[in-house]
Amino acid sequence: MGNNQDIEVLIALMAKLPGLGPRSARRAVLQLIKRRDILLAPLADALFNVAQSARECTNCGNIGTADICEICTNPKRAIAQICVVEDVADLWAMERSGVFKGRYHVLGGSLSALDGIGPDELRIPHLVNRTKGENITEVILALNATVDGQTTAHYIADQLEDQDISVTSLAQGVPIGGELDYLDDGTISAALNARKAV
Amino acid sequence: MGNNQDIEVLIALMAKLPGLGPRSARRAVLQLIKRRDILLAPLADALFNVAQSARECTNCGNIGTADICEICTNPKRAIAQICVVEDVADLWAMERSGVFKGRYHVLGGSLSALDGIGPDELRIPHLVNRTKGENITEVILALNATVDGQTTAHYIADQLEDQDISVTSLAQGVPIGGELDYLDDGTISAALNARKAV
Repeated sequence: MGNNQDIEVLIALMAKLPGLGPRSARRAVLQLIKRRDILLAPLADALFNVAQSARECTNCGNIGTADICEICTNPKRAIAQICVVEDVADLWAMERSGVFKGRYHVLGGSLSALDGIGPDELRIPHLVNRTKGENITEVILALNATVDGQTTAHYIADQLEDQDISVTSLAQGVPIGGELDYLDDGTISAALNARKAV
Repeated sequence: MGNNQDIEVLIALMAKLPGLGPRSARRAVLQLIKRRDILLAPLADALFNVAQSARECTNCGNIGTADICEICTNPKRAIAQICVVEDVADLWAMERSGVFKGRYHVLGGSLSALDGIGPDELRIPHLVNRTKGENITEVILALNATVDGQTTAHYIADQLEDQDISVTSLAQGVPIGGELDYLDDGTISAALNARKAV
């Protein structure tokens, strides 16, 4: 290659990032080296900072820089609602919508018999403890509309049955901007079944 | 966002890499944090190393970790041939093919009247000096088959005319594995004009 060990190591690591392959990693590294002062050095610093500071919130499982994350410590957020998501990425997606003002609980995945993931591999027992300890009135299940996600939703609903909590889930239907012609049959039938008066 | 400053800074920087946008940068950063020990920390180290060590070869313009790159110092490489490329990425692409055993000269771009890039913005004067100083017999122009690339090729050929050097360029034609049906007219007519006996 005529380029050095250090650079090859960097390319190999970059190629492990989701969304980059060996070729685009090579392109990204060249770009980094060309823009050393405004991109390479700041990126190295930012990575070090995050490596030092990032941690999981011990309460909800969100990723932040404190033991208890900003959402859990924010006094403006409703304490009575917990939104259950599979992954931190889902939590961030919910936050981008900006509609939910309660707190979260990140499961860390979904139940999967195939992958041998049971309730104890996820943070489901912890969720049940939270609903008992804090004064929760509603648990919103914002899980993926996949088989595993829905299995997990049913399991959690079962676990919370004996508590005086309303358990809800996200509505299913036609996505905003969606065209019927491009939707799958399952979505259309779900939307039809959940139809509402105009 | 409920996630911290450090993490947001990292996401913003990652989103500047070619091939990553804001959404895929977010996904990459989550992946990095989840795989802190095997990905995040090594990547931070690798970036620091490259930020420290990467430099342009003062002879050919390749990027390496010494003032004169490995290719220029390699005694096994033919000293009489110089392959002229627009960019370091092109040099790396040539090296991947493994066929060329001479040395390189990276121009750093191509002539472009629109962008105001003239011969002095590129390393063309330096190339002319090299051909005079070293015992060069052939200059291979491996420039992109674009208008700017071909303009640059003609200009360089002109500059080297008075020296006793053969100036060649990469053949144009059907790429290996290419299907005629998917090729543009220009490529087909170039391949037809340069046809050879079987």
